[in-house]
Amino acid sequence: MINPVLEAIRERRSNVRFNSTPIENEKVNAVLEAGRWAPSWTNVQPWRFIVVKDRAKKERMSSVVSTVFSLAVKDAPIVIAVCVNPEKDPFHFIEDGTTATQNMALAAQSLELSTSWIGVFSLHDEKHSAERKLKEILDIPKEWRLISLLPLGVSALKETKTRKELSDIVEFDCFTTRDDHKSELEAINRPSIDIQKILEPVSVRDLQRGTV
Amino acid sequence: MINPVLEAIRERRSNVRFNSTPIENEKVNAVLEAGRWAPSWTNVQPWRFIVVKDRAKKERMSSVVSTVFSLAVKDAPIVIAVCVNPEKDPFHFIEDGTTATQNMALAAQSLELSTSWIGVFSLHDEKHSAERKLKEILDIPKEWRLISLLPLGVSALKETKTRKELSDIVEFDCFTTRDDHKSELEAINRPSIDIQKILEPVSVRDLQRGTV
Repeated sequence: MINPVLEAIRERRSNVRFNSTPIENEKVNAVLEAGRWAPSWTNVQPWRFIVVKDRAKKERMSSVVSTVFSLAVKDAPIVIAVCVNPEKDPFHFIEDGTTATQNMALAAQSLELSTSWIGVFSLHDEKHSAERKLKEILDIPKEWRLISLLPLGVSALKETKTRKELSDIVEFDCFTTRDDHKSELEAINRPSIDIQKILEPVSVRDLQRGTV
Repeated sequence: MINPVLEAIRERRSNVRFNSTPIENEKVNAVLEAGRWAPSWTNVQPWRFIVVKDRAKKERMSSVVSTVFSLAVKDAPIVIAVCVNPEKDPFHFIEDGTTATQNMALAAQSLELSTSWIGVFSLHDEKHSAERKLKEILDIPKEWRLISLLPLGVSALKETKTRKELSDIVEFDCFTTRDDHKSELEAINRPSIDIQKILEPVSVRDLQRGTV
């Protein structure tokens, strides 16, 4: 079973190299629109998307993120920073920022653009985190949180993508009955042939990469 | 600018009423596949998707979630519970579970199915939360966390969906320069006409609804 949405979901991956091709404003707008239509807790939409084009700012940001993503942040013509305000949604602000980021990544994929999904939110120790340094660079107020950076542009690299099998991650009716239901899973939910085709061997680079 | 992916992103919404129409296995499989291809921190894929069809179990779950979603959990032919293991990803497990949930919600939308995005993860007090009760019902081990429930089925209700304007949530290069750049935003990123068309007035029900 395949359609353009399922295809975008399967084909999206976090790129680490972008070329300098500029992006049409219409496409940038469509990507931001996708973020706007994301779900959020009680529809509070507690987010702010910062569109970073300034070269000097991107360079400073690139020195803060994990090395695997440094060049992506530096080279991509645009980096979108997804901020959320926990005062507006104290319970699910992380999910709110994440759904917006994922929507934008998928929208970009559908427009033949690439993204990197760089999760920078610091769950345990914001004070000493990359998130804090990035908030300083982008003048993000203390009470807001930064969930992700999403470099956006044209990929300079063709990358592979791998995932566990469905049988490794799906269960029926409760957590612990997995082995009992494995045969049911195999019968009902076997990955279709088009998915099997795009499975490729895990490369060493994939294993080393800090993609989210 | 419109394509099937952007359309699914805009049209998806959290439904609160489902009818009893069963879902074809092929569609359930495609939805689960969409979760499987979600991004996660360093590609650890720390998730488990529990496909709940058992009527008694769904009834117990429905009594635990917020009342606005009770009937959705009870009536939908399938409820997918998205679990993650923080031992595999201590830093971004919430984002990992959220990207998988959002992928599945969009996949469902593309297959003319509806979902409810029910965020049940308890950020502050797991001990006294709906999450803990749901974990008990689904036999989810203590060390795992439950991010969301995603009732999946055919909608029994046509619902509206509203969002803030892009100009309310987008800024350029840094957080505090928003007003300076507002004109740039309006010139470059004005919502296209097709988006304006689907903007509908906020209903009281929308405001009251606990959708994520």
